[in-house]
Amino acid sequence: MSIARTEMPESSPYLLVDKQARAGRSTVNVGGVPIGPGTFTLIAGPCAVETPEQTLRAAEMARAGGAALLRGGAFKPRTSPYAFHGLGREGLLILSGVRAETGMPFVTEVLDTRDVDLVATHADMLQIGARNMQNFSLLRAAGSVGLPVLLKRGMSATIEEWLMAAEYVAQAGCTDIVLCERGIRTFETATRNTLDISAIPTVQRLSHLPVIVDPSHAGGRRDLVLPLGRAGAAVGADGMIIELHPQPEQALCDGKQALRPEDMPDLRALMEDVPLIAGRLAQTGPAGPAVSAVPTGVNGTP
Amino acid sequence: MSIARTEMPESSPYLLVDKQARAGRSTVNVGGVPIGPGTFTLIAGPCAVETPEQTLRAAEMARAGGAALLRGGAFKPRTSPYAFHGLGREGLLILSGVRAETGMPFVTEVLDTRDVDLVATHADMLQIGARNMQNFSLLRAAGSVGLPVLLKRGMSATIEEWLMAAEYVAQAGCTDIVLCERGIRTFETATRNTLDISAIPTVQRLSHLPVIVDPSHAGGRRDLVLPLGRAGAAVGADGMIIELHPQPEQALCDGKQALRPEDMPDLRALMEDVPLIAGRLAQTGPAGPAVSAVPTGVNGTP
Amino acid sequence: MSIARTEMPESSPYLLVDKQARAGRSTVNVGGVPIGPGTFTLIAGPCAVETPEQTLRAAEMARAGGAALLRGGAFKPRTSPYAFHGLGREGLLILSGVRAETGMPFVTEVLDTRDVDLVATHADMLQIGARNMQNFSLLRAAGSVGLPVLLKRGMSATIEEWLMAAEYVAQAGCTDIVLCERGIRTFETATRNTLDISAIPTVQRLSHLPVIVDPSHAGGRRDLVLPLGRAGAAVGADGMIIELHPQPEQALCDGKQALRPEDMPDLRALMEDVPLIAGRLAQTGPAGPAVSAVPTGVNGTP
Amino acid sequence: MSIARTEMPESSPYLLVDKQARAGRSTVNVGGVPIGPGTFTLIAGPCAVETPEQTLRAAEMARAGGAALLRGGAFKPRTSPYAFHGLGREGLLILSGVRAETGMPFVTEVLDTRDVDLVATHADMLQIGARNMQNFSLLRAAGSVGLPVLLKRGMSATIEEWLMAAEYVAQAGCTDIVLCERGIRTFETATRNTLDISAIPTVQRLSHLPVIVDPSHAGGRRDLVLPLGRAGAAVGADGMIIELHPQPEQALCDGKQALRPEDMPDLRALMEDVPLIAGRLAQTGPAGPAVSAVPTGVNGTP
Repeated sequence: MSIARTEMPESSPYLLVDKQARAGRSTVNVGGVPIGPGTFTLIAGPCAVETPEQTLRAAEMARAGGAALLRGGAFKPRTSPYAFHGLGREGLLILSGVRAETGMPFVTEVLDTRDVDLVATHADMLQIGARNMQNFSLLRAAGSVGLPVLLKRGMSATIEEWLMAAEYVAQAGCTDIVLCERGIRTFETATRNTLDISAIPTVQRLSHLPVIVDPSHAGGRRDLVLPLGRAGAAVGADGMIIELHPQPEQALCDGKQALRPEDMPDLRALMEDVPLIAGRLAQTGPAGPAVSAVPTGVNGTP
Repeated sequence: MSIARTEMPESSPYLLVDKQARAGRSTVNVGGVPIGPGTFTLIAGPCAVETPEQTLRAAEMARAGGAALLRGGAFKPRTSPYAFHGLGREGLLILSGVRAETGMPFVTEVLDTRDVDLVATHADMLQIGARNMQNFSLLRAAGSVGLPVLLKRGMSATIEEWLMAAEYVAQAGCTDIVLCERGIRTFETATRNTLDISAIPTVQRLSHLPVIVDPSHAGGRRDLVLPLGRAGAAVGADGMIIELHPQPEQALCDGKQALRPEDMPDLRALMEDVPLIAGRLAQTGPAGPAVSAVPTGVNGTP
Repeated sequence: MSIARTEMPESSPYLLVDKQARAGRSTVNVGGVPIGPGTFTLIAGPCAVETPEQTLRAAEMARAGGAALLRGGAFKPRTSPYAFHGLGREGLLILSGVRAETGMPFVTEVLDTRDVDLVATHADMLQIGARNMQNFSLLRAAGSVGLPVLLKRGMSATIEEWLMAAEYVAQAGCTDIVLCERGIRTFETATRNTLDISAIPTVQRLSHLPVIVDPSHAGGRRDLVLPLGRAGAAVGADGMIIELHPQPEQALCDGKQALRPEDMPDLRALMEDVPLIAGRLAQTGPAGPAVSAVPTGVNGTP
Repeated sequence: MSIARTEMPESSPYLLVDKQARAGRSTVNVGGVPIGPGTFTLIAGPCAVETPEQTLRAAEMARAGGAALLRGGAFKPRTSPYAFHGLGREGLLILSGVRAETGMPFVTEVLDTRDVDLVATHADMLQIGARNMQNFSLLRAAGSVGLPVLLKRGMSATIEEWLMAAEYVAQAGCTDIVLCERGIRTFETATRNTLDISAIPTVQRLSHLPVIVDPSHAGGRRDLVLPLGRAGAAVGADGMIIELHPQPEQALCDGKQALRPEDMPDLRALMEDVPLIAGRLAQTGPAGPAVSAVPTGVNGTP
């Protein structure tokens, strides 16, 4: 009886996602939309897919706000078994339909290895949520279906553990990984989580993977979404994922942190300001080419 | 298109595992071994099943130390994809064989919904690890196969979230749940985790479920296992799960925290001291009947 | 202009309090009461000195519970400037009077370098509170007046920082230092703080100083005081400091965590159980001589 | 014997620094330099004053980088008693001399109530460091000498505790308080602390006091100073305090996080970009008047 023990190399614990593995920083292509150096791609949409109408309206909001990609949960991880857990397959059909009508590629979360193929049939990008960052079976399954993966940081994961989780996905065959900082758990209770803004440049120093920021879950409050998103742009994030809803007060989850239709002009203004916010840092720093080269016709709105 | 939104009841977020749901505290039966008030059941074994010989010797050590149940990982969650991930099915066969020879029921971890049936075919109790505490699909799957479940606390999970995770298992059909405090993540780096010893009496106040302590993962150091286990007994824990190995220096995982053969007398002495350690607290406190009523012929040593 | 730069030695960051600095573990003498290996000294009393009557009754309670030393705050650090901050000098006079009547030496907190001499005139031991653990001026001042010092761990201090704080006191001339673990700040909100029970054996491995546990501040709840104190004894703490009050519901601070008169029998029972709780660990472990050698006539009650 | 118990008002725990206490957000004047809405004041200088030459060169660097105020430690809080603790009074004399020559007002830390008058004789603003945020005697003493106070957040202080600490200063007579977010302690070890960027807008919602960011201590790495400072500007901070040194490799403390002479152009560029970074947010948000109204002739460079 022999044991197939794979030795961890001495040099670096994460070989494939290490900065040294590539000549420069990587760009991940999601249904034709690039995420990587020189971009600040906005992913926006509702926490959960509820109805076709709500999803379509949310997509239109997202586009008006400057989003190139749609987000929306069909399978929802919830702390309580009695909460709304998403529409499942029906939610995926809705998202596919909205993509057909709007042309916006979408990212959606997968929670169970048994659902990976189904979700991959519909989605343009698979999301691994914070609670599943060390669900290693799911990481491997998601990494083996040929779609890009959005990997959220676990709420108490170190940056090294996060990159090791990405290495699981990479080792399974997929290096088209986008990392997402969504706030960590600390003693502070004034915000839902504590956005670890330093993680963005730290990850970009250690890995070639793009990294985006999620100000909606980090702050857990509508009024913090734009300021925290702005902070993300300021430190050189490669994009942002936010939640919005046509009627947040009627949302089936996380309505308090969802932007409203009337917030879209401010969101769009922020997106237009990104080259100024990231500015010189982006032009001279390790983030690569200038943000002013953002191909806004592609990953912003036309 | 209708949404099946299950409302969360106002009264308590965890209905089935709440203290109010039962007249007294529950006892969970694992292959004939009780875990609950009036017991201090020892679960011991290697981090990972490596060979039949190693597992058998570990089981003999465990028994000598006072254990009634064997633990051993066939599927191992590891931070790195390049680390040893366990023998899988082969490991389950070894555990079954060792049970046949020693008569010790065993608990082993399941990582993937697709493996639940396989693991359940062999094991006497399914373990959900800290990293999967909010892997809700896995909680439901584990809760529906008719075996008792050992639910470890997530490393940054609040006690409320932990009980909500237990509620998932309960709602899936299994209320034979044993909770396990295994240390939480804090700023302190002198220990692998910080054992939240207060969680034991806090959980016993909120829920009817038994709760045990894992001093091996909490401290991450061999010299802390017995002191922390003693602390667990002192606050009224219903048992303890520890790691041991016939040759820790050659262990394929976590050798630094594994007890050695020469530690078994001290472990057994601790087990014999439990009624004294828990003492009056157990006799008069909310933990129910006196610890001196521990049926040591069953869940202690013969 | 020259700079008197004192170099930190390579070998150990804390020279005087390091385990290597002494042949064995130290015993600190407080007004004739020893705290150190082979003891489990109980310090008890009210959060704040309110009146002579309240303090005298509290001292009698403390003695009935098994305490050898009295605690009581004359200078109280409070989060709010509008809260009760203690009686100051008047409180010290009350404590002196109660000592005269009961014979119990007392420990009390000092908050300001300008008050050190005044407090030292009255007290048998100076307490440095958690919020002042890195008030280096205060550490030095307290270390230079010839009294033993009780040094609480800062609420987010690492064990190394705590020992470095002790080194300040030692370098100022006082090595009669007793360390006190009183809970650290984590994300968990079910308890006021999280008692880091592992810190007790960890400190005893690194330093020769005695270390005690404060279950009152750690848990912040009356019902957790005895279980957590028991856990402290189980891991080999050299003593315990707790809060009690003749009428907790009328206490001017922290009434929720104060033991009541009716809790004294349970407290005393716990004190009597200490040799059993600490047991073999104490007899064979690094804690030195057996706990059964506790001179209960001296630091327990007669 | 009566107890002067001051009742805490029901309405708000911090009366004087509460947002409701003023019509708008406050501006604090430091030696003629405003800190408040419509500004982004840079405070820069060495960790510690070492020599007159070093301090003068640092002040010239600071000015070149766009700083209006000088910082420099004469009394240094250090984890180890064997580390360099600053030049004390001599350091204050050096700072006064450099101010005379450069015209830059300066802020410096005070550690001991006994030193408050001395430091106040020289400094334009008193700094209360993170370790002393709940040194209530020091807060009161600092608040009573008629100088503005820079109050750093404690490393594990909640925002509410931080505002309560400010209330101590205010109650002692000084409402010219500037709050400073300098990173909190979390489990992440890749950075010295975790900058809680959300704290900036959260504080501005709760209090009328200005709040600035300290990217040097937050990140603990030179390469993070400008990105994190940029993030501070992006969320609407009222300024920034950073460390620099003419020869960081020879600095007596914290050289790794000090900017070098060659970093000054990038620092100045960042300062010039601030109106763009803060942008619309500042113009329309709760931060008051547009950042483009920054009186750069006063609190920037001439």
